[in-house]
Amino acid sequence: MSSASQARRLKGPDELEIVAFERGHFSSYSACGIPYWVGGDVSDRDRLIARTPEEHRARGIDLRMRTEITEIDVARCRVRARDADSGAETWTSYDKLVIATGARPIRPDLPGIHAPGVHGVQTLDDGQALLDTLASTEGRRAVVVGAGYIGVEMAEALINRGYEVTVVNRGSEPMATLDPDMGRLVRDAMEGLGITMVNDAAVTGILTKDGSRPAVRAVATDEAEYPADVVILGIGVRPESALAKAAGLPLGEHGGLLTDLAMRVRGHENIWAGGDCVEVLDLVAGRERHIALGTHANKHGQVIGTNAGGGYATFPGVVGTAVSKVCDLEIARTGLREKDARRAGLQYEVVVVESTSRAGYYPDAAPMTVKMLAERRTGRLLGVQIVGREGAAKRVDIAAVALTARMTVEEMTALDLGYAPPFSPVWDPVLVAARKAAAAVRKAPR
Amino acid sequence: MSSASQARRLKGPDELEIVAFERGHFSSYSACGIPYWVGGDVSDRDRLIARTPEEHRARGIDLRMRTEITEIDVARCRVRARDADSGAETWTSYDKLVIATGARPIRPDLPGIHAPGVHGVQTLDDGQALLDTLASTEGRRAVVVGAGYIGVEMAEALINRGYEVTVVNRGSEPMATLDPDMGRLVRDAMEGLGITMVNDAAVTGILTKDGSRPAVRAVATDEAEYPADVVILGIGVRPESALAKAAGLPLGEHGGLLTDLAMRVRGHENIWAGGDCVEVLDLVAGRERHIALGTHANKHGQVIGTNAGGGYATFPGVVGTAVSKVCDLEIARTGLREKDARRAGLQYEVVVVESTSRAGYYPDAAPMTVKMLAERRTGRLLGVQIVGREGAAKRVDIAAVALTARMTVEEMTALDLGYAPPFSPVWDPVLVAARKAAAAVRKAPR
Repeated sequence: MSSASQARRLKGPDELEIVAFERGHFSSYSACGIPYWVGGDVSDRDRLIARTPEEHRARGIDLRMRTEITEIDVARCRVRARDADSGAETWTSYDKLVIATGARPIRPDLPGIHAPGVHGVQTLDDGQALLDTLASTEGRRAVVVGAGYIGVEMAEALINRGYEVTVVNRGSEPMATLDPDMGRLVRDAMEGLGITMVNDAAVTGILTKDGSRPAVRAVATDEAEYPADVVILGIGVRPESALAKAAGLPLGEHGGLLTDLAMRVRGHENIWAGGDCVEVLDLVAGRERHIALGTHANKHGQVIGTNAGGGYATFPGVVGTAVSKVCDLEIARTGLREKDARRAGLQYEVVVVESTSRAGYYPDAAPMTVKMLAERRTGRLLGVQIVGREGAAKRVDIAAVALTARMTVEEMTALDLGYAPPFSPVWDPVLVAARKAAAAVRKAPR
Repeated sequence: MSSASQARRLKGPDELEIVAFERGHFSSYSACGIPYWVGGDVSDRDRLIARTPEEHRARGIDLRMRTEITEIDVARCRVRARDADSGAETWTSYDKLVIATGARPIRPDLPGIHAPGVHGVQTLDDGQALLDTLASTEGRRAVVVGAGYIGVEMAEALINRGYEVTVVNRGSEPMATLDPDMGRLVRDAMEGLGITMVNDAAVTGILTKDGSRPAVRAVATDEAEYPADVVILGIGVRPESALAKAAGLPLGEHGGLLTDLAMRVRGHENIWAGGDCVEVLDLVAGRERHIALGTHANKHGQVIGTNAGGGYATFPGVVGTAVSKVCDLEIARTGLREKDARRAGLQYEVVVVESTSRAGYYPDAAPMTVKMLAERRTGRLLGVQIVGREGAAKRVDIAAVALTARMTVEEMTALDLGYAPPFSPVWDPVLVAARKAAAAVRKAPR
């Protein structure tokens, strides 16, 4: 809908007809807000909706809700749509096509995975279903499967609602988007909040009660059973690219559509794709990745709408920035983790520093751990991870810009960052890390 | 002391003898913390002291307190020192000299300016004298002269202590480091806190009571009198470069010492200078400025100590970043204001956007105003100013790094900044400003 809106800004209804198909009940909403709605921080589902179908239609976009595209016929430039209620199918022709099918949550094929009380949190419909379960279930034991962003945010949401929360995690520490030494800090904080973290655990099935449509009763791993009145799946997502695949469009190794820098599907002059269904270029590693993140999807929409509307814009790629929080713990990363760097064939120096969010003498100065990777020989910044309290997460933006500019850690030591006692020690924690990383690069064998 | 400590890290006492002279009572303290100590946020003066004279001496630095250098004899490589208590003078020879004489507050030559109850807040001694006055004075009316960082921070400190505070300001709005339209937002917030802001006011004198050593009673301007039991001067500082000037060392147009990129005084192989007594290169405007800021001084110390200790380091310059707060209002700037850009001969596009610190639906999302300047034709970022609440100020670091990397606002629109609902709308406020600025550059006549 972002690309449709942007194209409409550039071309009026007499110049460009825009038809949009949505299989669900909602348009233009913030999926990222669902954990906060479930947790009660956001009072009302409608607050997550940026623009209703009626608002889109008022702007001259023919938005057809509850209508699913079942086939893309690239050769004849048409799509087949099915009305979700009647099942009726119709073909619609296009001059230009935008694919924004998003991602689907991973649901491993395990016994009991479809039992009542087992919930994903990908769509508003999912969020509503989960809230309905919470309202109708007496038990207060929740098991979250997966300890990535969604898993961790859902653990916070359920702790805030007074649940007894267990997180069952396949990896060695939560937040596999961090290196394990930094994930360990997240685990410590989660345990401090009363969340039970189970690491290195493979879920083998969802156990259910007896009855005709048996509800969930526990999550089983290869080692134990964790009693559950509700189960949240936060295992991650995959690009929803089945339609594109069936149409013969190019997919990458992560299953996402491959585009050029103008977000055109490779080899197809009149088809664009963006959002969670595409792969994006990782500018640091120099290869494609799949990253489902609302901020990238919005940028894609802006670029696609501009190009489809006759203008020119590009999406150059990402550096892999992500921020999150669990209660008052802030978590951030950008660029490469150690294993990413190794996979990319890079040798690196790595440093970890402890600092504070404010001058040490200022009230509420909170500890912050910054990990930084720099390439050997060149000293180029490769990545930063931060775990801390208030003021920690958004500091990662400093590194995100420095990565984009391909700065060395030595250059970063001279960065003119904002300093005043309420906001930073006289050396910002990121500068402290850069100094230590620069020293490590100088000392390392060349 | 920062340069002395760094040189000592590189060279032991048998390789390099280090003598340091300090005319005051304290070493290595955070002058930036004084307003928070006066305001009561920092309980104890000693918390502002990073390293005592004894600690420096234990690290092999011969630190001579209460000893003022009265002459630098460049030709004979020696300095003359006077003991503050005895008045005795001695000459000390040097192979390498570091000048770190700092800045002195501007005290205009006005009637009554030296009266009891009129205070600067440059040194710990100043802060202690002010606290003594506050403790011994019954009246609760404070007048702050000047509305820059120090003036505004002192206004907050005194409001927090229950004073009736009037700020008398020569400029059209407080915070002349911002453009007046952004300074206006600061004024509104200060007035909302109960601070009386008097703009466009020239102080003509300090009025005193009768008596043998008459204390302050009011601040007079050309238009009115403002009753005062205590007066704080926050008019700004000038480089303390009289010694250097007398020694024939090169000074810039703002009265600060001029150095090369290794912080060597220009034309002098064995003299370095750093901190508030030097001018620094403004990388955006391409000319020297005087900026008294602890974070720059610390970087200078690191660079000087490395070079004087036989290593190699440079300070490439600044982009003009500064952050501050008044109660819960956060204020930030980097790069050029409109008048700086005009003075530098630059033509520019300027945009102002309103956004929020968090996703709009997330609790405590606070409004934030971002102003952005970009050069015409090139679209290069020239400057950013931000006024907002929690989470506003440190966002300026994004722009500080982008300025250092000489990014265009168009390039900035693709920056991969941290996004999650508790930390940012899906388009970070800085990205919203960059998009609008990029559009303005595209639309402008070339």
